[in-house]
Amino acid sequence: MIPSDWYNIVPDLPAPPPPPLHPGTRLPIGPEDLAPLFPMELIGQEVSGERFVPIPQEVLDVYRLWRPTPLIRAHRLEKELGTPARIYYKYEGVSPAGSHKPNTAVPQAFYNAREGVRLLTTETGAGQWGSALAFACAQFGLECRVWMVRASYDQKPYRRSLMQVYGATVHPSPSPVTGAGSKVLADDPDSPGSLGIAISEAVEVAGATSDARYALGSVLNHVLMHQTVIGEEALAQLPEMPDLVVGCAGGGSNFAGLAFPFLREKLAGRIGTVFRAVEPAACPSFTRGAYAYDFGDAAGFTPLLKMHTLGHTFVPDPIHAGGLRYHGMSPLLSHMYELGLFEAVTRAQNECFAAGVRFARTEGIVPAPEPTHALAETIAEALRCKESGEEKVILTALCGHGHFDLGAYDRYLAGELDDYSLPQERIDRALAELPG
Amino acid sequence: MIPSDWYNIVPDLPAPPPPPLHPGTRLPIGPEDLAPLFPMELIGQEVSGERFVPIPQEVLDVYRLWRPTPLIRAHRLEKELGTPARIYYKYEGVSPAGSHKPNTAVPQAFYNAREGVRLLTTETGAGQWGSALAFACAQFGLECRVWMVRASYDQKPYRRSLMQVYGATVHPSPSPVTGAGSKVLADDPDSPGSLGIAISEAVEVAGATSDARYALGSVLNHVLMHQTVIGEEALAQLPEMPDLVVGCAGGGSNFAGLAFPFLREKLAGRIGTVFRAVEPAACPSFTRGAYAYDFGDAAGFTPLLKMHTLGHTFVPDPIHAGGLRYHGMSPLLSHMYELGLFEAVTRAQNECFAAGVRFARTEGIVPAPEPTHALAETIAEALRCKESGEEKVILTALCGHGHFDLGAYDRYLAGELDDYSLPQERIDRALAELPG
Repeated sequence: MIPSDWYNIVPDLPAPPPPPLHPGTRLPIGPEDLAPLFPMELIGQEVSGERFVPIPQEVLDVYRLWRPTPLIRAHRLEKELGTPARIYYKYEGVSPAGSHKPNTAVPQAFYNAREGVRLLTTETGAGQWGSALAFACAQFGLECRVWMVRASYDQKPYRRSLMQVYGATVHPSPSPVTGAGSKVLADDPDSPGSLGIAISEAVEVAGATSDARYALGSVLNHVLMHQTVIGEEALAQLPEMPDLVVGCAGGGSNFAGLAFPFLREKLAGRIGTVFRAVEPAACPSFTRGAYAYDFGDAAGFTPLLKMHTLGHTFVPDPIHAGGLRYHGMSPLLSHMYELGLFEAVTRAQNECFAAGVRFARTEGIVPAPEPTHALAETIAEALRCKESGEEKVILTALCGHGHFDLGAYDRYLAGELDDYSLPQERIDRALAELPG
Repeated sequence: MIPSDWYNIVPDLPAPPPPPLHPGTRLPIGPEDLAPLFPMELIGQEVSGERFVPIPQEVLDVYRLWRPTPLIRAHRLEKELGTPARIYYKYEGVSPAGSHKPNTAVPQAFYNAREGVRLLTTETGAGQWGSALAFACAQFGLECRVWMVRASYDQKPYRRSLMQVYGATVHPSPSPVTGAGSKVLADDPDSPGSLGIAISEAVEVAGATSDARYALGSVLNHVLMHQTVIGEEALAQLPEMPDLVVGCAGGGSNFAGLAFPFLREKLAGRIGTVFRAVEPAACPSFTRGAYAYDFGDAAGFTPLLKMHTLGHTFVPDPIHAGGLRYHGMSPLLSHMYELGLFEAVTRAQNECFAAGVRFARTEGIVPAPEPTHALAETIAEALRCKESGEEKVILTALCGHGHFDLGAYDRYLAGELDDYSLPQERIDRALAELPG
């Protein structure tokens, strides 16, 4: 019932995605440019032309701890909405780290361990990715060091504890143990940190240590491919094919993981499903960004990626859906959006939390702030069906639980959450700094 | 795959358990004594002589949100221990509230709603039971008011938030809204509260309101019976019968829920399984308590229950397994312990957390502090098997996750947790205050 292969959508697309470019030469980067940071197997998967990549037995042995994940019909939510729509959710919060992130953390740790790597480094904002990688490293005897944005490190001590229970070392970022962190601390000893700084620290340590590598939790092709276990399972579990697939999108791995197997069926003409990515109104890269070459990180260390971006200097307002606060978007998804393969919409913070509370009171699960965006869109669609009488089948990605986000729910219930308007001039200013 | 009936073990026992007594008359209590607090259906189940009680369809419709729960073989833990034992765990942490408690909260809310009750009241310590009842009340349109011990209310704000997300009203106890609470506050405005005070407040409001009732999360026969869904599912899921069943015991509903269906098979001579309850060393009612009539609450409001007790005035040391900090024990389990149907052992706090960390790093799930007691015993047994070469089959109850307990793991990892020795004189002093 767990799929035996990951699905690589690239060879099924009508046109290949544009390649990443070296920021100096503006030429496509090669494997040698990535070798200091990633193991060869993942570099190969990043550019693979194979439609299916077998999941190694050692990875399946770990997936079995929580996969297959449940696919549940939201009977109680449907009833409360009074909708003729039939709503299904695929729930990834049963994983050890509580989200879909372990689906890629586990194979990343496995391939690194198989190639003799001893230490993995990474950054984490809210902590979902860091705890997934810490768990995965524990499974394969790898050391794990996580640079966690200091503001989150201080505000979310339980996420830090979770990584430590799994045996990882967690540094508040900026940290004095790297050159990049020391430099920031010298200027501002009280710096709250940022994802950009944390990436710099994790990359610095991985690059300077021969038996260390770096791991990324979204955006890249191989990450999206690992997440297709979600959609493959859902395809097999669903008693009827969806008219609409809805998922939230930050870097894009959750939406892609659910959607790609269904998109394969659509590209082959077997289903007529509509696909819809939901972004936070505070960070709308598909809907209000440019499609352009930009850096993946704030500091400008990465290759140039052609993607929907608000500009690498754009700093999103502090919505609680930390996993959706990313200036860019997966280059593969960006390319597919340009091909017209899916829609994108935005939802504002308060209506997302309202959807989360409504879902918790009917279906029981308290969702993480990220998937409440998909739930808000799902509920809106179900209410449109109530008006029209359409018996639409909706499938939504419930990519994690909110057990570590109850402080945000508290603030929502107290009426203290902001929706943050995003003036066009803020986007224009950041886009003006796109690399030449 | 979800059982259609709850299993009532009472008619299968060689002797019936002693009845609860009225504290004034010392005569067995009747249904009329309980009617102000519980709906008639639950009073009937409390004294039922039927071996099987059908689970109502409305309850099954809610159970389906997370049941059947997974039964998982702990391959990775076995390998790390190097044991020939085969270890299985039944995981109840996938429920909306994160523990086995919703198994009884849901039917309790359902029967109350069906009998026209509008409001359920209860107390909660660490918050597991309160959040389970809040969830259940949301499913049947009941109002829910929870008195939460103030020390926990202040220390565990996320558990409070969870109840509020489900729509419950949460009062820190002692509260000014009841007579019992006001009296305590008048004496000590800074009282940290206790479970005994919180029970008094919840019972006072239920008793004084015609369409309100009170709900209890463990100890009583009907609560234990509702939990047998755990064991019935495990019986059907296991590929081989266990040689040993291990569960932690506070009030007893978790241990009973897993064990009773297997005990039925043993009483019928079909299996030779050994059963073992694990208590915290800081609160050892089976192993160091008296078997005597005592009050169920600290204040002495309840009927007298014949049970293993450390005395209703005994105040356990503040171990983090809040669900095991109860001076008494289920009267039904106490009776069965006297009949020699199972064993009981104790485990101290630090070895329990060590087992929890070991489990998290191999199997991924971070266990709540309560089931780490069963895991510590399971690991000890598996290591005994390593010595002896026995291929024992061990089944353990993993009754909840520790996502709200990571502060306790933090303290364990920092070496700050106490094991608390329990001098015999403290037990003797409390037992000297047993009623008449």
